Amino acid sequence: MTNKKEIFAGIIVIGNEILSGRTQDTNTSTLSLWLNSLGIKVQEVRTIPDIEEVIIQTVNELRKKFSYVFTTGGIGPTHDDITALSISKAFGLEYGPHKEAMSILEKYYKPGEFNKGRQKMACMPLEASLILNPTSGAPGFNVENVFCLPGVPSILKSMLGGIVHKLVGGDPILNKTIHLRTVESEIAKSLNDVQDNNKDIEIGSYPFFRAGKLGVSIVLRSSDQNKIDQCYLEIVKFVKEKNIEIINIE
Amino acid sequence: MTNKKEIFAGIIVIGNEILSGRTQDTNTSTLSLWLNSLGIKVQEVRTIPDIEEVIIQTVNELRKKFSYVFTTGGIGPTHDDITALSISKAFGLEYGPHKEAMSILEKYYKPGEFNKGRQKMACMPLEASLILNPTSGAPGFNVENVFCLPGVPSILKSMLGGIVHKLVGGDPILNKTIHLRTVESEIAKSLNDVQDNNKDIEIGSYPFFRAGKLGVSIVLRSSDQNKIDQCYLEIVKFVKEKNIEIINIE
Repeated sequence: MTNKKEIFAGIIVIGNEILSGRTQDTNTSTLSLWLNSLGIKVQEVRTIPDIEEVIIQTVNELRKKFSYVFTTGGIGPTHDDITALSISKAFGLEYGPHKEAMSILEKYYKPGEFNKGRQKMACMPLEASLILNPTSGAPGFNVENVFCLPGVPSILKSMLGGIVHKLVGGDPILNKTIHLRTVESEIAKSLNDVQDNNKDIEIGSYPFFRAGKLGVSIVLRSSDQNKIDQCYLEIVKFVKEKNIEIINIE
Repeated sequence: MTNKKEIFAGIIVIGNEILSGRTQDTNTSTLSLWLNSLGIKVQEVRTIPDIEEVIIQTVNELRKKFSYVFTTGGIGPTHDDITALSISKAFGLEYGPHKEAMSILEKYYKPGEFNKGRQKMACMPLEASLILNPTSGAPGFNVENVFCLPGVPSILKSMLGGIVHKLVGGDPILNKTIHLRTVESEIAKSLNDVQDNNKDIEIGSYPFFRAGKLGVSIVLRSSDQNKIDQCYLEIVKFVKEKNIEIINIE
């Protein structure tokens, strides 16, 4: 079996509303789960404020570090939406009304309603490729390996289908989760031994409290199903020896 | 009125389970809202994997950049809990069983139950100060301006009270939110004018869909109530001129 190279992505969440705690980010998990299914692993997320220099610096750092970078937020019509201008500056590209985006929005709005605020949503790096928006008209865009999406979760989700053909993924990342009725310290040593035997599989251990009871979820992640299965058998072995209840397996 | 200096913090969310999308982070908003109330503004959040070099590098970068850094996750008993060791290395401090933490955990567990996995939870930089854990015994810790907390949200929340006396905040960050029945592009220009008149107040504009209806929340943030009030009046003025419905004000 030939292993494809692992493909990594970074996410930049742009928005004071996330940093202030006012808004709970959910786009990270949406993007991560979707990218996993394409064989792309999110390796870093940065949440940053609506400050031009910070956006430019973060984009320029992450686009060199990862195969793909996704930004969320800051592409609407108001004064605090500065992602498109910042991306233009990060790449040293001219910023202005994008022909194709202007044409899409002109058709989207009723005659006379395509006002100045709305025209701002068509302003971006002139040579960007558009990411179509089936929900609310205003497109996202991509420049090289950077993909700029809106912050509103339902709109972001509706736009992902339009990006798939632009991404080259690795083998999809598979996972198996074993939920146990135990506490982490009961299984720490045995689990460590399993990890030592299976160095190239990601084994995560996560305690939970649900319906007043303690438990631990063990998550196995790899692009190789055989390795997950091998690891799973080793875990079930020590779990049975310790008389630990398996709550369920996903 | 003398303005205190603004105090900034960074958050480092440590954990593959957040990056994979399996777990939704909620600790960021918990920490941000709590820090706001102490007059400390979260300026950056980084979510990173359980990889020692990445943790060391991120901690060393952010602790120089911000007055305070909070880490969440990776201080449990299992093999993937490597925060305490990584922090020791980031500061060049000796890692081992922390006397006070050992004593707390010895008392917490029944005789004979303080096994090796549990002893790992007492291992950290030897000169760290503890952050007591009223929920489940195992303490967090702090070294200089870095505060290490667990990833389980309910346990993290229960430990914040033990940190307050270690933080020096600025003026609390106040906010006022105006929910309008409109769309962003209708108010973009007017809101931009208000921002131009009030440069040192943070004005955010956030579209929402709720119960099938569109709306926009305008969020004003500042440590100066007078400035918020002034800004609020300017917004209400243009909102009335445009016959836009105010849904409610928080």
